[in-house]
Amino acid sequence: MTAAPGHQEEEATVMDPSTFDPVLTPGGVTSPRGYRASGVHCGLKHRKPDLALVVSDTPATAAGMFTTNLVRAAPVRYCQDALAHGTVRAIVVNSGNANACTGPQGDADALEMAERVATLLAVPTHEVLVASTGVIGQALPMGRIRAGIPAAVAALDPSGGAAHEAILTTDAFPKTCAARFDLGGTPVTIGGMAKGAGMIHPNMATMLAFLTTDAAVAPAALAQALRQAVAVSFNSITVDGDTSTNDSVILLANGAAGGPALAGGAELERFTAALTAVCQDLARKIVRDGEGATRLVEVTVTGAASDADARRAAETVATSLLVKTMLWGGEPNWGRVLGALGRCGVPLVPETVDVRFGPVTVVRGGLGVPGVADAAAAALRGAEVDLGISLGGGSGRATMWTCDLNEGYVRINGNYLT
Amino acid sequence: MTAAPGHQEEEATVMDPSTFDPVLTPGGVTSPRGYRASGVHCGLKHRKPDLALVVSDTPATAAGMFTTNLVRAAPVRYCQDALAHGTVRAIVVNSGNANACTGPQGDADALEMAERVATLLAVPTHEVLVASTGVIGQALPMGRIRAGIPAAVAALDPSGGAAHEAILTTDAFPKTCAARFDLGGTPVTIGGMAKGAGMIHPNMATMLAFLTTDAAVAPAALAQALRQAVAVSFNSITVDGDTSTNDSVILLANGAAGGPALAGGAELERFTAALTAVCQDLARKIVRDGEGATRLVEVTVTGAASDADARRAAETVATSLLVKTMLWGGEPNWGRVLGALGRCGVPLVPETVDVRFGPVTVVRGGLGVPGVADAAAAALRGAEVDLGISLGGGSGRATMWTCDLNEGYVRINGNYLT
Repeated sequence: MTAAPGHQEEEATVMDPSTFDPVLTPGGVTSPRGYRASGVHCGLKHRKPDLALVVSDTPATAAGMFTTNLVRAAPVRYCQDALAHGTVRAIVVNSGNANACTGPQGDADALEMAERVATLLAVPTHEVLVASTGVIGQALPMGRIRAGIPAAVAALDPSGGAAHEAILTTDAFPKTCAARFDLGGTPVTIGGMAKGAGMIHPNMATMLAFLTTDAAVAPAALAQALRQAVAVSFNSITVDGDTSTNDSVILLANGAAGGPALAGGAELERFTAALTAVCQDLARKIVRDGEGATRLVEVTVTGAASDADARRAAETVATSLLVKTMLWGGEPNWGRVLGALGRCGVPLVPETVDVRFGPVTVVRGGLGVPGVADAAAAALRGAEVDLGISLGGGSGRATMWTCDLNEGYVRINGNYLT
Repeated sequence: MTAAPGHQEEEATVMDPSTFDPVLTPGGVTSPRGYRASGVHCGLKHRKPDLALVVSDTPATAAGMFTTNLVRAAPVRYCQDALAHGTVRAIVVNSGNANACTGPQGDADALEMAERVATLLAVPTHEVLVASTGVIGQALPMGRIRAGIPAAVAALDPSGGAAHEAILTTDAFPKTCAARFDLGGTPVTIGGMAKGAGMIHPNMATMLAFLTTDAAVAPAALAQALRQAVAVSFNSITVDGDTSTNDSVILLANGAAGGPALAGGAELERFTAALTAVCQDLARKIVRDGEGATRLVEVTVTGAASDADARRAAETVATSLLVKTMLWGGEPNWGRVLGALGRCGVPLVPETVDVRFGPVTVVRGGLGVPGVADAAAAALRGAEVDLGISLGGGSGRATMWTCDLNEGYVRINGNYLT
């Protein structure tokens, strides 16, 4: 996932969590002051809510990051253009249809969604962002969306309504989260909602996340904070290595909490740390809800020559089908981890590699540790599994979140259309 | 998979099949003159043959290609050293245990296997190659192997015995093939046997293939022929994107057919074409026997800027879990193919992409073709599926073979140790 055009790329830096540990609370996109949201059923899905709307009472500074897939859905192209205009007032989201590979008609439909919301809210069209998720290659049933938009506007509520449900596709549960903290004496809130559940992989996924805050943040600072938070959250998870045409993460900051606009310094670092915590919570919920997933697995690689090498090693292990089926079966077949490390493209001395399943070291110096199979199997069979790899040299490190692969994934994805 | 040390790398060139189309016949490693083989049960597996031996009556020119994984099993390291010594008389292969990640003991065990065979055959140790496949990280039960080797030598037979069964692990069926043709008036034969079935991916796989010929071929020419044949066969297949520590392809040429040793020219091209046909037949059998696979899928990409770009696109599509589960379900969800193409790293103009499922064009110019869903679904539901992609510009092309992903793969790999 990359920033919208015009945003400068920079190296992600991970906050030191010891300096600030924001408390996460239940909540969502309307937890910050000055937001309303709704979710209604307009007929794209059989019965469930399928059209969501998030509105800021005042124009909000906005930042977005979008799929790196060269096949970009119409709403992604629309948002990348719209964000160049400045502030944002609303985001309209439909599930059930991705409006991807839909040609010029798709672009027209995305624009019309924005226009209809803008008219009802009496704001400029470019202040309305659009996101879609669902089946690729079918035209949006605009008749239903045209009827749904006034209903969504009418249902707008500070409670957020069913917005967090209306953005879901194959997700088993909604994903929301909030963080409350203070910035220079001003209490502020960040809230968010996200959807998975397949096609989750760094830089792409049918993954949508919408984040709101009542903090006042300058545009460049907001974009920087989002890039840093996404690098170690939504861009550090994988469900199936596939990536979608529709990935979008959008962050609005309306300043309703008061106070001067953050532009840098220690307060921006606090804000970024809190934003990272919210994004990581949502990202972990996406992985936990990976199609068919039964375990959330945290893969941490240390001792690499660089963070980039560690990331590459972690990603290869987290993506390996043999590792992911091992994580499902719960058998400590650590040779598959070594096999993945050996092909990941990172310089590696097998004799210096250690592997840990939870608290149990199963490989030391490239060789299996005898007598730990039962303890290692037990460590693999929890709902959360910690898989640690030390490459034995260097200070590079990275963490990825993944899930097991099982028959549920195959069932869901082998019969998606029916 | 790369050539053994000392062999020069060069670009693979694909033979024009119109110039020479060798006839494949049933057969195996003892179809060429001057070879015997055997397969016996020594106790590494429960009941089935697990120790194979292939012997040439006279010293044979040899070439080998091995895993690119940095975690190389002991027998791979041993073979790469032994091949530097020149001719080869025998290959000993065990299944049930990979002798990988076994440290210095593993190296000693691989060497001892070669020594014991060499002693019984009265040949130098370095004329005996060794291959292993099976569980990683457990020491070889050498007592059983020591007892099995004399039995395998005693069972050597021009019929080949059970050699083709003794090399298998989770394979559902043995994979053998032969080609008979003439070189400058001399009738010659190439025979082969291979094993899959998971961890199959270019440059790695728990994949073993042993090829024999009675043609006389100079060492450099033999290595070149093997490299060219492997590039478009064993290195163009994928089952799960994972790769193993033990991949080996070994080719022996004992010259028993008579005639001068091939060193280049049109006759070497004929030989390479026949070798390619044998390797492709074995490679397709490996994919057809991919763990759980129900369909053999040929992915052909044309219209790329280069063959390398085409290969990258074909590999991304052939490896995508969403594509592979679609191939299982048989639903023509072509958006997944476009999604994979969009993330494959190759420059792409979505509006110029065509996609074909069998004879049915489902995407033209990046947009879905209306009214073809039923025909497209029917094309996806055969035992062999042809998936064609045109990127709309350039003459680069590549073909990969893959299979569907289904619950069978998950079952086999989630419970491998038990």
